[in-house]
Amino acid sequence: MQEQFDAEGRLRHLITLENFDRARLTSLLDKATAYLRPAGDLPAHENRFNGRTVANLFFEPSTRTRASFELAAKRLGLHVLNLDVRMSSRSKGESILDTVYTLEAMGSDIFVLRDSEPGVPAFIAANVQSHVSVLSAGEADVSHPTQGLLDILTIRQHKKCLEDVSVTMIGDIVHSRVARSAYQALQILGAGKINLVAPPAFMPAAHHFAGAERFNEIEPALRDADVVMALRIQRERMGVASIPDTSDYHKRFGLTAERLALARPDAIVMHPGPMNRGVEIASDVADGPQSVIRQQVRNGVAVRMAVMSTVLETLHS
Amino acid sequence: MQEQFDAEGRLRHLITLENFDRARLTSLLDKATAYLRPAGDLPAHENRFNGRTVANLFFEPSTRTRASFELAAKRLGLHVLNLDVRMSSRSKGESILDTVYTLEAMGSDIFVLRDSEPGVPAFIAANVQSHVSVLSAGEADVSHPTQGLLDILTIRQHKKCLEDVSVTMIGDIVHSRVARSAYQALQILGAGKINLVAPPAFMPAAHHFAGAERFNEIEPALRDADVVMALRIQRERMGVASIPDTSDYHKRFGLTAERLALARPDAIVMHPGPMNRGVEIASDVADGPQSVIRQQVRNGVAVRMAVMSTVLETLHS
Amino acid sequence: MQEQFDAEGRLRHLITLENFDRARLTSLLDKATAYLRPAGDLPAHENRFNGRTVANLFFEPSTRTRASFELAAKRLGLHVLNLDVRMSSRSKGESILDTVYTLEAMGSDIFVLRDSEPGVPAFIAANVQSHVSVLSAGEADVSHPTQGLLDILTIRQHKKCLEDVSVTMIGDIVHSRVARSAYQALQILGAGKINLVAPPAFMPAAHHFAGAERFNEIEPALRDADVVMALRIQRERMGVASIPDTSDYHKRFGLTAERLALARPDAIVMHPGPMNRGVEIASDVADGPQSVIRQQVRNGVAVRMAVMSTVLETLHS
Repeated sequence: MQEQFDAEGRLRHLITLENFDRARLTSLLDKATAYLRPAGDLPAHENRFNGRTVANLFFEPSTRTRASFELAAKRLGLHVLNLDVRMSSRSKGESILDTVYTLEAMGSDIFVLRDSEPGVPAFIAANVQSHVSVLSAGEADVSHPTQGLLDILTIRQHKKCLEDVSVTMIGDIVHSRVARSAYQALQILGAGKINLVAPPAFMPAAHHFAGAERFNEIEPALRDADVVMALRIQRERMGVASIPDTSDYHKRFGLTAERLALARPDAIVMHPGPMNRGVEIASDVADGPQSVIRQQVRNGVAVRMAVMSTVLETLHS
Repeated sequence: MQEQFDAEGRLRHLITLENFDRARLTSLLDKATAYLRPAGDLPAHENRFNGRTVANLFFEPSTRTRASFELAAKRLGLHVLNLDVRMSSRSKGESILDTVYTLEAMGSDIFVLRDSEPGVPAFIAANVQSHVSVLSAGEADVSHPTQGLLDILTIRQHKKCLEDVSVTMIGDIVHSRVARSAYQALQILGAGKINLVAPPAFMPAAHHFAGAERFNEIEPALRDADVVMALRIQRERMGVASIPDTSDYHKRFGLTAERLALARPDAIVMHPGPMNRGVEIASDVADGPQSVIRQQVRNGVAVRMAVMSTVLETLHS
Repeated sequence: MQEQFDAEGRLRHLITLENFDRARLTSLLDKATAYLRPAGDLPAHENRFNGRTVANLFFEPSTRTRASFELAAKRLGLHVLNLDVRMSSRSKGESILDTVYTLEAMGSDIFVLRDSEPGVPAFIAANVQSHVSVLSAGEADVSHPTQGLLDILTIRQHKKCLEDVSVTMIGDIVHSRVARSAYQALQILGAGKINLVAPPAFMPAAHHFAGAERFNEIEPALRDADVVMALRIQRERMGVASIPDTSDYHKRFGLTAERLALARPDAIVMHPGPMNRGVEIASDVADGPQSVIRQQVRNGVAVRMAVMSTVLETLHS
């Protein structure tokens, strides 16, 4: 695992939240908060980093996350290169590195990487020059650190005392890099209780998500929850045989209004998007008064601005 | 139909020219005119809206119109997100809306939408927040309002008195959103006379284009015309069986120099592009001295700047 | 051949280096040098040309060269339109011209063109208006002038006296626009000696690369070389039958450490990228201490900034 922090302990790359501590996490969330503006207001922007360059290198298609990183970068005054790269697995390691070396030589300061296979962000981070930073925008089913940050920021905006908070994650947990990163963030900030509910095929092995309570029925897992996270069924990360019948899945594990009523009345509903409406979440819940799904998206841009400005400060201080 | 104007009657969305009046149309054309510069001069640009965001959401491929909106936005100092989205029809309504909600939460101020199916711009406009605007960049065969505006601006540049002007539209009128929007603009400004000429399969039903005179031969329709609009054959909006043989079509309805000679000597030739040269228009006419086709393109950027700055003034005044 | 220089002899288009003289070449290299900054420093940038527009029109896919032109343009404050266009050969001539006319009317100042067929840049240059410039980003196997410039700039950075320099080009010379442009630049600056080494199928006809010595074995060609240029095997420009077996090719013509030892101890190793590692070049050579491959990439952005600012000065002086 490539070290994410430099010799003085400052954030240099962002690949995982695993080795973050409370102070570092809190400071990133505070920084992101400072970038938030009311909807419709002129977005926060800076010109400290004008002329620096971000290369978005997406080996897995993405509309939303790429757009979020792109806007975050532009609002920091950065030039953005968008490169959607399709590569065969066989030659990928070598080709990615040559692509990175090329973009680095052109003066890219930050690489934003998404890939369906594990290991690429750390591999790239281990090979770039000392004035270059690597940010993961989603790594296989392993890690999605900016999503974890925006999730925890959203929870913090609604629940004052994280130590008392009970979080229920529902659905395709085993394939979810979102769940992993959110779990890590919750652990670091000392969330009170984490419940996992999933059909057996979607439940992670016992040594993952240590300390979480596991359920195979949704109703008991929702009881008294403060935060309910519905997860996207990751069809693209399953074999065909294991994709569940969607209406059957919704019947057993879908987050409906009836089920949500089991949680605390002020519980918030989260989803990383894009949603399969009528599968893991009912439309009236997704659009209902307890949903904070769009707030998660808004927080995402602020979190990415905070991460980018932090690593640029590390690189050029 | 979603209201395009806000409570004070200011332009909020642009979906159709249908309910425009003369004053509003004229004021938009005047504003566009103020953005025009001589070819080769530095283009007009503004920084009033720096930091605002336009999302180009094209569900139908487009090179020219997307580029025109993109340049208009950049010259107003806006950030531009380009999203070329391919979606199946079945799930589109719901997915488009989730995509829009996401981009809205990221701080998009304007959505530029193009779609091959009718109804999408009004549907989106009915669902966005009060600080967001929707602009149609082409809606099925229904409406293409910025094209209508640039067409009428081009005519106004050449013909002082619209009341005396005779306009002849030739070709695939029934599938043409361009013809519809141009017709609406001409009606509002009180154009003297509109002639339609098309083979029966391309002639719109009688209740459309009210007041226009219909012809099934090109020569009498061109007599004494001040403005001749050749329309693109919209192969993508026809069944295979109804696509005409192109050389036969050119023989009967192609705009040739010989036929153009029937119009007034100072008649102008227009085409919305991209042209099928040798089909609806002969190359020597497209490139000839009466052609204003490239002027239409130039006007297009100015019109889109005028529309964007107008709705931004409405949203943030 | 469209004249590249205006009436006062200033650079207007860049299509080939063929008719450059030493003074012009040197002045472009000096200008590029002024845009270079140490790795990690804030890249050079200008605002003289703010609001001008570059249209990247790539009819052949490219990641690296497009990114290099895009960054060069952005660092000069230009708006960039990226248009990846797929067109059938048959209708291309006419369609390209209509696309160019359209983008010209929108206010594009510079067209950057890449095409797999010869003749397009000169054809476009002959048809644009007097305030528009055309830059080739690679024309079939004919010319790649900015690559030639960055190659010669890289050589100049390492070898003080070009008259004494011995350059060895290895591999797929006949299909290489890179080799042609580098050869032209070397001729203009009076390089001491040029060796070509290639299997018979890759060796250009005798009247090309006049004055170069030809070899069919790599070892004698490398002896005492100051500059070793390995060329990419251009599979996309060969018939299937003529693509060599790659391991056999590497055995006979691959640039290995052992072979490189035959060149001078201070010889530099160049490659235009993207590399086929293990085919035309061994990985340890590509990444070794004599390799200047990443420096070539860095120089590429500076060269493109120099070319763009030069033609903009010509257009708007």
